[in-house]
Amino acid sequence: MIREAVQHRANRIDAYAINSKELQILLKTKKNDVEKVELLIGDPYDWKGSRWNFTTVSMTISGRDELFDYWIANVTPELRRLRYGFNLFNKKESVFYGEKGFRNDPPEDIGDYFCFPYLNKADIFTAPEWVKNTVWYQIFPERFANGDPSLNPESTVPWGSEEPKVNNFFGGDLQGVIDHLDYLEDLGISGIYFTPIFKATSNHKYDTIDYFEIDEHFGDKELLKKLIAECKNRGIRVMLDAVFNHGGFYFPPFQDVLKRGKGSKYNEWFHLWEYPVETRPKPNYDTFGFEYKMPKFNTENPEVKNYLLEVGRYWAREFDIDAWRLDVANEVDQSFWREFRKEVKAINPDLYILGEIWHDAIPWLKGDQFDAVMNYPFTNNVLLLFAKKEITPKQFVENMTKVQHMYPKNINLVTFNLVGSHDTPRILTECGNDKQSLKQVFTLLLTYYGTPSIYYGDEIGLTGEQDPGCRKCMEWEEHNQDTDLRDFVKTLISLRKKEPLLANEGSFIFLSPELSDKSFGYVHSNDTESIIVLFNTSDKKDKVKLLFDSTPSSVDDLLTDQKIKWKNGKITLEPHEAKLIKLTH
Amino acid sequence: MIREAVQHRANRIDAYAINSKELQILLKTKKNDVEKVELLIGDPYDWKGSRWNFTTVSMTISGRDELFDYWIANVTPELRRLRYGFNLFNKKESVFYGEKGFRNDPPEDIGDYFCFPYLNKADIFTAPEWVKNTVWYQIFPERFANGDPSLNPESTVPWGSEEPKVNNFFGGDLQGVIDHLDYLEDLGISGIYFTPIFKATSNHKYDTIDYFEIDEHFGDKELLKKLIAECKNRGIRVMLDAVFNHGGFYFPPFQDVLKRGKGSKYNEWFHLWEYPVETRPKPNYDTFGFEYKMPKFNTENPEVKNYLLEVGRYWAREFDIDAWRLDVANEVDQSFWREFRKEVKAINPDLYILGEIWHDAIPWLKGDQFDAVMNYPFTNNVLLLFAKKEITPKQFVENMTKVQHMYPKNINLVTFNLVGSHDTPRILTECGNDKQSLKQVFTLLLTYYGTPSIYYGDEIGLTGEQDPGCRKCMEWEEHNQDTDLRDFVKTLISLRKKEPLLANEGSFIFLSPELSDKSFGYVHSNDTESIIVLFNTSDKKDKVKLLFDSTPSSVDDLLTDQKIKWKNGKITLEPHEAKLIKLTH
Repeated sequence: MIREAVQHRANRIDAYAINSKELQILLKTKKNDVEKVELLIGDPYDWKGSRWNFTTVSMTISGRDELFDYWIANVTPELRRLRYGFNLFNKKESVFYGEKGFRNDPPEDIGDYFCFPYLNKADIFTAPEWVKNTVWYQIFPERFANGDPSLNPESTVPWGSEEPKVNNFFGGDLQGVIDHLDYLEDLGISGIYFTPIFKATSNHKYDTIDYFEIDEHFGDKELLKKLIAECKNRGIRVMLDAVFNHGGFYFPPFQDVLKRGKGSKYNEWFHLWEYPVETRPKPNYDTFGFEYKMPKFNTENPEVKNYLLEVGRYWAREFDIDAWRLDVANEVDQSFWREFRKEVKAINPDLYILGEIWHDAIPWLKGDQFDAVMNYPFTNNVLLLFAKKEITPKQFVENMTKVQHMYPKNINLVTFNLVGSHDTPRILTECGNDKQSLKQVFTLLLTYYGTPSIYYGDEIGLTGEQDPGCRKCMEWEEHNQDTDLRDFVKTLISLRKKEPLLANEGSFIFLSPELSDKSFGYVHSNDTESIIVLFNTSDKKDKVKLLFDSTPSSVDDLLTDQKIKWKNGKITLEPHEAKLIKLTH
Repeated sequence: MIREAVQHRANRIDAYAINSKELQILLKTKKNDVEKVELLIGDPYDWKGSRWNFTTVSMTISGRDELFDYWIANVTPELRRLRYGFNLFNKKESVFYGEKGFRNDPPEDIGDYFCFPYLNKADIFTAPEWVKNTVWYQIFPERFANGDPSLNPESTVPWGSEEPKVNNFFGGDLQGVIDHLDYLEDLGISGIYFTPIFKATSNHKYDTIDYFEIDEHFGDKELLKKLIAECKNRGIRVMLDAVFNHGGFYFPPFQDVLKRGKGSKYNEWFHLWEYPVETRPKPNYDTFGFEYKMPKFNTENPEVKNYLLEVGRYWAREFDIDAWRLDVANEVDQSFWREFRKEVKAINPDLYILGEIWHDAIPWLKGDQFDAVMNYPFTNNVLLLFAKKEITPKQFVENMTKVQHMYPKNINLVTFNLVGSHDTPRILTECGNDKQSLKQVFTLLLTYYGTPSIYYGDEIGLTGEQDPGCRKCMEWEEHNQDTDLRDFVKTLISLRKKEPLLANEGSFIFLSPELSDKSFGYVHSNDTESIIVLFNTSDKKDKVKLLFDSTPSSVDDLLTDQKIKWKNGKITLEPHEAKLIKLTH
């Protein structure tokens, strides 16, 4: 046994409260190295004479990546307290693994075991229930629809009349969104993520001037209230974008600092290195990236903290928004986010907090800061497989399995899955305009665990390269829309609503990558049903065989709505086909 | 290379802010498997054309346990932002390791690297500066000294006239402590940890009745103020014990619950399972362990929270205490501790928060809860080596190295090291009354990293088995004290004060366990000096050879205060000798 590969730490990631009664325990071992794992569990204070009183439960493999097997077990300790250890078996040996390392046999000293001292409700990671049933739609307001030309910026050019540029304007606004809510309702989405709508200079509005005002080219507060009310009527949640890492260049406190330097009462609002404050040749203050127009906030300054926390509270309190998306969330201090969570959840405990973090986000997902992050590792693997075709289905399954096991289940159920945004090339462009691949991408996005998000226009086949190319005007002429694609997306969304298993109910596991070298799949299941999602990523037919203990009582193809014959689990997949099969046991 | 053994996660443990500028990066690899590790570092936004601009620094092995090598590097990113990865080399291969796994070469995609997005000051783990220079003395007030017989409980028996029992009283009190502060000052200690002093029934006072009153048998608030003032005059810090996991049986709200059941206004103060509330045959409410006399608090109830937080604030605000020790800290919810920290640090940012946690404590040591925990893994390994003699010096070094690398350096510098307490048998008894071993234990305790604590009377040779045996009356008759032992401890304490290297200045590393099979040692060093601490744990002489690059300009034996000859680093250790050697380079 490769002992160095055996990994577990009682760190609230590998040992984790799923709800107020149940813990999930995770162990990593080298792939194919260990044949059986028993979890030894007992109450920390339960002794029979001089011997600690433990029982054993079996662990099962919940996934396998390139290097590791991931073993899990769920346990419900009666008194919500747990000591535990692992017995590992393979053909050559059996060993005990605990907090102090390896032993030949389960030790007598309880200090050798791992500890989950008490399952306190207050410490359980809890995101709002509604998130896991939500299908998001991301809107870049300047480019979605122009509903009120009277608000157009001076330099506005006709809708879609030219390519999107870093600095051109097409007049998109909030009225435009209101005008097209019927379209969104018909599509079936249940949440809108708006990129920033507060007063700012640029077309993307990530350079805020006033966090308490709607940008005048988008509308005003009354209009936002109307928009939110209309959304709520349609069961659509609203998420706004909070840019708290940095202010805009024309944010008045920063202008004051530029003007007055040390004499400015805002000189502690930013990270200034010296006086006078200069923007060139290089800014002598902390910035987002190297962008002198985006001075980083000093979020440790109580004045800044109060200001930004009040922004967080204000829009939650006065406008009843359902969610905050936090821009560049990883560069702001975590103490600030802890306070932010406390403040906004006090106003609305059901408010979803989504951080923009592209890398390993575990430090922010302990339950005290964010509910979720934007799942770019998902995006990345989807692109590698379906668009760039740089990895095999097997590698895809391994990579996704790795990401899946980096986070506990509760976190996964609300992770924000996306296949493109205002910061990436359009997914259809990434797929080389291959619609079959794109359909597979949508099938994956809308049948995977987590909460899926569709970037405006992806559903009707908008194309575009990296920003600014990916910020084209939405196409509203139906004859210019790919309505076949849109109807396909609509079907998937409706299936997700109809089948709870597709919306984070039940368990999730990948089918073994040994299934096929062309195809891969995964299964959502509960006691009575399973939904298998299969993808043939090749341009050849593929035959796969699903292994189930018993013959299902009924088998349905959810996309065609046809019954299919079970044939001992043998399934034929057409080239680039994605298939959803529902088994009733 | 065993890839499954390569471990790093950007989780604020393996990548860690030491101060406002510097990060420490830790990597684990299978022992002796990797010959060289380069850390690739760069600013996340610093591109040269299409290529990310990184540089490399060497990592060094900072320790080695049974299974792993621990590699570290310190880096100071100019803009406090870092992306990083690892190049690993051995004779057979070289590979890159990053957030997405292994690659043959450093990848172009910055997403393949680990990320420390921003070093925000607010997120740095910071314990009070004074802690690392403090030598603690733990007092169990009922057994330290009886200074005011008028306060004796009715059943008090004469001082030391019988063995300590679960329920006998000897009349120890706060006046007794005041009377012996000269003794403590002379010994050289600089902090007192008092087990509970609040109104309670038992002799140990862990069953609190009133958190706002001093136990009447110990004294009153005025006397505590005097005691604290006298301590401060002598440069002695004061730590009180907060029992917030559970109340005492006679805590009035619990009595009310027993009496009124569901009708009690305190019925949400505890975790009651049903009504009526019953203590027998088994309590039908959550308790500490299975002790019906210790009902667990519902610290999620705002009333309980307010009550206990005010306890925390009250003694800090009104009595200016320097530290809180938190009893059974691991079973209370972490949200509560986050608030507790905020509240008490607002009153005194220099207040030390010490949690009682016996097992892996990383979830509590992220900077948002405790400053330190009681280092029982230290205790445990000291006992295994010096008392129970169940492990070899090599195993000791490996076990301690493992513990050392479970926590970042900032945490280690303030960890609370102890070799015994009111909850364990006396250290002399554990050592089978072998004074030579005990002297080695004290030498280790007082020259190791962290903040050491001496349990009252251990310094004069008190003996005793597990509680209640370990709670004997302090021996004040000098002819009954082991004054040789006491003087030895005194010398060690004064050396720790004189030599900053012994009090957490400089770097710390174990000598290779290959040094000898009888002896082990470690080195504290800075640019100009090193202090080597050596222990021969056998009953035979031992010769060891220290490897240093250059001949030191002077070599001193700190315990004998003699110059010694360098002899190419060859040192002879007498049986059971502990030696402190200071090298000036």
